[in-house]
Amino acid sequence: MRSVEWIGESLRFIDQTRLPLEEVFVRTSDVNVVVEAIRSLRIRGAPAIGVAAAFGVVMAANGAHPATQAACRGAAENSIALLAATRPTASNLFTALRRMKEVLDRTTESSSTALRAALLAEADRILQEDIRACDRIGTLGATLIGQGSTLLTHCNTGMLATAGDGTALNVIATAAAEGKVVRVYVDETRPLFQGSRLTAWELARRNIEATVITDSTAGTLFQQGKIAAVFVGADRIAANGDTANKVGTYGLAVLASRHKVPFYVAAPVSTIDPGSQTGASIRIEERDAREVTHVAGIRVAAEGVSVYAPAFDVTPNELISAIVTDAGILRAPYAAGIARVTGKPSGS
Amino acid sequence: MRSVEWIGESLRFIDQTRLPLEEVFVRTSDVNVVVEAIRSLRIRGAPAIGVAAAFGVVMAANGAHPATQAACRGAAENSIALLAATRPTASNLFTALRRMKEVLDRTTESSSTALRAALLAEADRILQEDIRACDRIGTLGATLIGQGSTLLTHCNTGMLATAGDGTALNVIATAAAEGKVVRVYVDETRPLFQGSRLTAWELARRNIEATVITDSTAGTLFQQGKIAAVFVGADRIAANGDTANKVGTYGLAVLASRHKVPFYVAAPVSTIDPGSQTGASIRIEERDAREVTHVAGIRVAAEGVSVYAPAFDVTPNELISAIVTDAGILRAPYAAGIARVTGKPSGS
Repeated sequence: MRSVEWIGESLRFIDQTRLPLEEVFVRTSDVNVVVEAIRSLRIRGAPAIGVAAAFGVVMAANGAHPATQAACRGAAENSIALLAATRPTASNLFTALRRMKEVLDRTTESSSTALRAALLAEADRILQEDIRACDRIGTLGATLIGQGSTLLTHCNTGMLATAGDGTALNVIATAAAEGKVVRVYVDETRPLFQGSRLTAWELARRNIEATVITDSTAGTLFQQGKIAAVFVGADRIAANGDTANKVGTYGLAVLASRHKVPFYVAAPVSTIDPGSQTGASIRIEERDAREVTHVAGIRVAAEGVSVYAPAFDVTPNELISAIVTDAGILRAPYAAGIARVTGKPSGS
Repeated sequence: MRSVEWIGESLRFIDQTRLPLEEVFVRTSDVNVVVEAIRSLRIRGAPAIGVAAAFGVVMAANGAHPATQAACRGAAENSIALLAATRPTASNLFTALRRMKEVLDRTTESSSTALRAALLAEADRILQEDIRACDRIGTLGATLIGQGSTLLTHCNTGMLATAGDGTALNVIATAAAEGKVVRVYVDETRPLFQGSRLTAWELARRNIEATVITDSTAGTLFQQGKIAAVFVGADRIAANGDTANKVGTYGLAVLASRHKVPFYVAAPVSTIDPGSQTGASIRIEERDAREVTHVAGIRVAAEGVSVYAPAFDVTPNELISAIVTDAGILRAPYAAGIARVTGKPSGS
């Protein structure tokens, strides 16, 4: 099972807002459906967003009328603008769209068929690279996990968040398959419960022992000495290693540091943004107040107060023990390793 | 408005599980209703629990048949056992029940009327003392808050949590009335949303600017330098100042320490348990998994995983800047101050 995949002429994705209660798959060749799906988190997880967006551009070109090269190109360019406006933080979205734009720029044949084929080939490369990156991250990251480990994770970084088998959660699953993992504690991850809804669902499917906690219960587990290591994903990694990830990641990193527990980030190189010199230049998305005040459509919060709902926070590099990428495990100082794996010096 | 009060022969309390959607008051002279209400968190907040339990003993004695002194005494003693089994952590519950037991022990008149009057007088003293303690805590604590402060609080420590005007939230409200508070950030406080349901409701009623956040958003606010001080309540304070409070308090204290933000506990002396030498000997209640897996009766979490749901955590004394009690503001080392205000040396 794949979270996002290309079948025939359309994208098939699982609607993550319906999980775990229902497994609903959507098949579409309409880029507007993809735009809405990313914005509403039916498709979520930085790598999965990037892959879906790439195929969104393909769909836009395929759907152009008349099917001339100019019309296809125009539709593709419009879709890039639309897709770029869905969510501001996930680096992979912009990496994927930049690659699709480069295909448009370098494909000068007059045939719309050639242009569409080139776009499809690039989207498929992005997808295949993501699958391979997940595999590599899982294998490399699992070497960081000792026998009999109890681990903690936040949000969802599994199969659902990628086109492949996941990032941080794939590290955990790979180590579990090697018999090294006793239990995984899963932060429920408010406000949208990606931990208790999605990660718990993935771990149960894989028969890995999992325990859900409210986000603020993590401190107790650290105090009890239960956590051997923390693994989280990333939505954008700056050139110096500062990492934007689901809100709450920073607090976990601070607790891990206090309790001298290794804190690992796992993400493909496509999540690294060498254009962000530090975390300070990463734009953090704010979500709708209703995601905090309501659950399943039911109001829980009192009226008459405001809500502050950033989707992500930034963990400074000094709190990160290592960043597991598909191009290797990076350690502090991160700038050198990041420049090497991205091929770009800091700030480029 | 009072969260718990004695009217005529019965206890009147607001059902906190129905807030903020409905303001439902329950009036009862049946101790079993009080037992259920404490267990189900219709009555919650350590001081409010203590007051309600004291009146529960009164109701039990009043309801004895036949209304002999022996029957009243037996019913009161039974009710003490029942009430003591409701929730294990709130110190005030046991403080109040011990005081009611002492009344039983020292009231040797043969008249049931005299016994019932003595029990009622003691319960009323506990209530009146709580009201005065709240006032004193508010006044003292507000001196710790500077002009133009933005504050952060967790769970609910207001009027709802006490028989009076609250502990930590009353400090905040008192400072707000003095014009010193710009904004209060309120942790929603999973799993039961006492922050977004109850504290937000209280602050809106008082016209104090409030912003609700998910619990793990606090880290971002500290990073932004927005928080001038944190005020929380307590369910039990050990002889050395270690403080059990709603789960998540420890994580906040760690963040406050990292960001050099004062972290204050506010609680009446009745919350201090000199019998617990340190936090390690405080029994932490575990709540039902369903409080985490479901919201408003709707399942949000995946099936097939376990849940760990401690209601409280313990913040070590070294992370606490001061403890605001009705008998004064205590500072480290806490053992001396606690021995003084409780009149009991550590471990007694």
